[in-house]
Amino acid sequence: MRRVVCPGSFDPATNGHLDIIGRAARIYDEVVVAVLVNPSKAGLFTIDERLEMLRAVTAGYPNVRIEAFQGLLVDFCKANDIPIVLKGLRAVSDFDYELQMAQMNLGLAGVETLFMATNPQYSFLSSSLIKDVAKWGGDVRQHVPELIADRLYERLGKKSD
Amino acid sequence: MRRVVCPGSFDPATNGHLDIIGRAARIYDEVVVAVLVNPSKAGLFTIDERLEMLRAVTAGYPNVRIEAFQGLLVDFCKANDIPIVLKGLRAVSDFDYELQMAQMNLGLAGVETLFMATNPQYSFLSSSLIKDVAKWGGDVRQHVPELIADRLYERLGKKSD
Amino acid sequence: MRRVVCPGSFDPATNGHLDIIGRAARIYDEVVVAVLVNPSKAGLFTIDERLEMLRAVTAGYPNVRIEAFQGLLVDFCKANDIPIVLKGLRAVSDFDYELQMAQMNLGLAGVETLFMATNPQYSFLSSSLIKDVAKWGGDVRQHVPELIADRLYERLGKKSD
Amino acid sequence: MRRVVCPGSFDPATNGHLDIIGRAARIYDEVVVAVLVNPSKAGLFTIDERLEMLRAVTAGYPNVRIEAFQGLLVDFCKANDIPIVLKGLRAVSDFDYELQMAQMNLGLAGVETLFMATNPQYSFLSSSLIKDVAKWGGDVRQHVPELIADRLYERLGKKSD
Amino acid sequence: MRRVVCPGSFDPATNGHLDIIGRAARIYDEVVVAVLVNPSKAGLFTIDERLEMLRAVTAGYPNVRIEAFQGLLVDFCKANDIPIVLKGLRAVSDFDYELQMAQMNLGLAGVETLFMATNPQYSFLSSSLIKDVAKWGGDVRQHVPELIADRLYERLGKKSD
Amino acid sequence: MRRVVCPGSFDPATNGHLDIIGRAARIYDEVVVAVLVNPSKAGLFTIDERLEMLRAVTAGYPNVRIEAFQGLLVDFCKANDIPIVLKGLRAVSDFDYELQMAQMNLGLAGVETLFMATNPQYSFLSSSLIKDVAKWGGDVRQHVPELIADRLYERLGKKSD
Repeated sequence: MRRVVCPGSFDPATNGHLDIIGRAARIYDEVVVAVLVNPSKAGLFTIDERLEMLRAVTAGYPNVRIEAFQGLLVDFCKANDIPIVLKGLRAVSDFDYELQMAQMNLGLAGVETLFMATNPQYSFLSSSLIKDVAKWGGDVRQHVPELIADRLYERLGKKSD
Repeated sequence: MRRVVCPGSFDPATNGHLDIIGRAARIYDEVVVAVLVNPSKAGLFTIDERLEMLRAVTAGYPNVRIEAFQGLLVDFCKANDIPIVLKGLRAVSDFDYELQMAQMNLGLAGVETLFMATNPQYSFLSSSLIKDVAKWGGDVRQHVPELIADRLYERLGKKSD
Repeated sequence: MRRVVCPGSFDPATNGHLDIIGRAARIYDEVVVAVLVNPSKAGLFTIDERLEMLRAVTAGYPNVRIEAFQGLLVDFCKANDIPIVLKGLRAVSDFDYELQMAQMNLGLAGVETLFMATNPQYSFLSSSLIKDVAKWGGDVRQHVPELIADRLYERLGKKSD
Repeated sequence: MRRVVCPGSFDPATNGHLDIIGRAARIYDEVVVAVLVNPSKAGLFTIDERLEMLRAVTAGYPNVRIEAFQGLLVDFCKANDIPIVLKGLRAVSDFDYELQMAQMNLGLAGVETLFMATNPQYSFLSSSLIKDVAKWGGDVRQHVPELIADRLYERLGKKSD
Repeated sequence: MRRVVCPGSFDPATNGHLDIIGRAARIYDEVVVAVLVNPSKAGLFTIDERLEMLRAVTAGYPNVRIEAFQGLLVDFCKANDIPIVLKGLRAVSDFDYELQMAQMNLGLAGVETLFMATNPQYSFLSSSLIKDVAKWGGDVRQHVPELIADRLYERLGKKSD
Repeated sequence: MRRVVCPGSFDPATNGHLDIIGRAARIYDEVVVAVLVNPSKAGLFTIDERLEMLRAVTAGYPNVRIEAFQGLLVDFCKANDIPIVLKGLRAVSDFDYELQMAQMNLGLAGVETLFMATNPQYSFLSSSLIKDVAKWGGDVRQHVPELIADRLYERLGKKSD
């Protein structure tokens, strides 16, 4: 059984995240999407809301499992017997930080990191940009799933147009 | 009438910003300098002070107009009938973020973004670096207009040498 | 009359080039597409073939003019009264070289260069990659106009599938 | 059976290549190392020599297979039933080109590309740098396997010190 | 007497910092390691603790001196008669910011900045990454000196394993 | 005696090269400018011409010495007792290659490489761009010393305007 983890904050998930998750689900037996619990940084959505939204939008993939984790990703990997981290790479500015983490995780616990290029049509998306746009009533429906767009507008007190 | 917008925080404007504004004023009929109002981030200068300083230092350009805006830049563009955003590019580290914004703005409202390379002699300037240097009494008079240097030293309680 | 030049080798033009040309044609009065004649580098297509293909695929834009030029781009700009070079930026690796050229051209003749982000769905295209793929019979029909795909397969002795 | 391909010129293989191949062999059932035959570019070693050297230095991995290929990588993948390309990423300068290829290959044939960060201690190695150093008698024994160092010095007419 | 300054926060120093300090000590007569006092940013360790740890781990270098400074680095350089700043470069993402500072410091006071590539095996280390890992009990003993690892685990309430 | 080497092709030297050489001469006892002899690549100027031009334009620096070298830079360093290579960094695209060389040279012979940021006003210059511009009669007099501009126009059969 080949298992990978796709870690992130997912506050909220965008079509860019879902592109990576969906492609990972095609080439691995199980994909664990791991939502990082970061007590020092309040998100727009609670961890439970993020888990629930992710479960809803990945319901079509029987081999995708959604989990929360706190602490080191490599400890989560060891506890769940996951040898590989899979990350999307969007742009050069992601590169240095992701390589730093990859080298650290390999050294800490022998956990490998594999990178997958985000589909170009999603390469300019980020959760924070989506929130900025939605906050002012901009249209984000082409960049996140319907359910997440609805929740975003609702949370931000915007009309869902 | 060809109109472009040069958006930014301008807290305060540097010679790098003025290089872009001046060159834009040579090739467009009207240049709207739009100061972003960000309620969640207190600046060194108030929005009114930034507007006033920008008006003073661009007084020589009859086709430059200074405005404040809040919300999405594309909404400001639509309200003011501006089809093009013009941004200075200083370095590779500006690149990914600016491209992300450009793609988003094109998708949201058909607003194009054009990039202009900052004159190399200003390419290492940023408002925050200028404030750091001025705060400790360093000489910023070659990097910002006289009027802005005076206001910086005054605000930061430094002697204007 | 606002006129810009889009210079390049166009051996052959891709959908990425056409994206930039089409968007330029929407925001400028006239777009001159200038094909660089480089005697020291034989292309797959002759200059005349490139001009003819470009004319065919831009026939829908009444304000796009196709020309060849040799020598310095700034001399072409002066001879044709064009104050602005417009270039597509695809990725960080384009950035340093294009900035170098932009600074040189501004210094040589006061010619400004404006950059426009290539549409993400074309951001991974280049003429040489297209030729490599077509040479081995790979499908390039989604990356270049029909007419150019036909000419590519014909020139490279591949079946047009 | 999970199979990946590691494509390249391998003229000759360095410890950086072998780091990627070895790590791939730990996480995949079969790793096919595919040596690109490029008739328009003469290498230092023939394709047969590269295959033979690669076979010798990967003899310890029972699940690594060495092959030559010509043409499109995606055609090789389809012919050999390989759904994934695995590439090492050393530095930002690799990034744009590799992403371009990855997007093209995904579009051409649904073949995914996964990137693995080269171990930092090998991140500055390249076959051409190794050949440059060896050509002048510099010590490359810490950067390539013993057998390859010997062959390099022999081919370049240098004493094997 | 050739003197250089290696400035930083050193909260705490990593093997990457020590690599640069040690190599600087081999090629300069005196190396001043200058710990920046930043009142607006609380660190994990106090300035005094950082100075003390740095003194302990550089005790083997007779020509390394540890100091604290507040304000502009160029003022510290002038006060201590130091004409050169020496900085480690790890990755492209360091590059733009460091160049910006270097140009500013050269303009402010004629102080030159020289960059040295961090040893690749330390190129993925940063103080903040080390703190993140240690905070969750991860092993950082290969990335910082023994004494600093002990202090980190003690401060963060983790068992020193 | 502190000695550094500034290696390069210098075909021909630009104001960017001379900026680095002049600043190096201020902070080191002796600066050896080393012109790489590359038999497989014909330049515009012969090695002797480059040496002679460099000697003329650096005549004002008593501690700058001009030499040619062939082979590995580290061998030249050892033969001339030079512990440090000094290189200008212009842009991110220089970065990866230069770091690769720096790591190799440190490993081969313990030779350190220090990088100095090119003055921004010269950051867009390169010998090949200068030759391209001069070849078509463009004005390069602000980018290279008078003597080198004259020689360039003469060699390229252009009027020295």
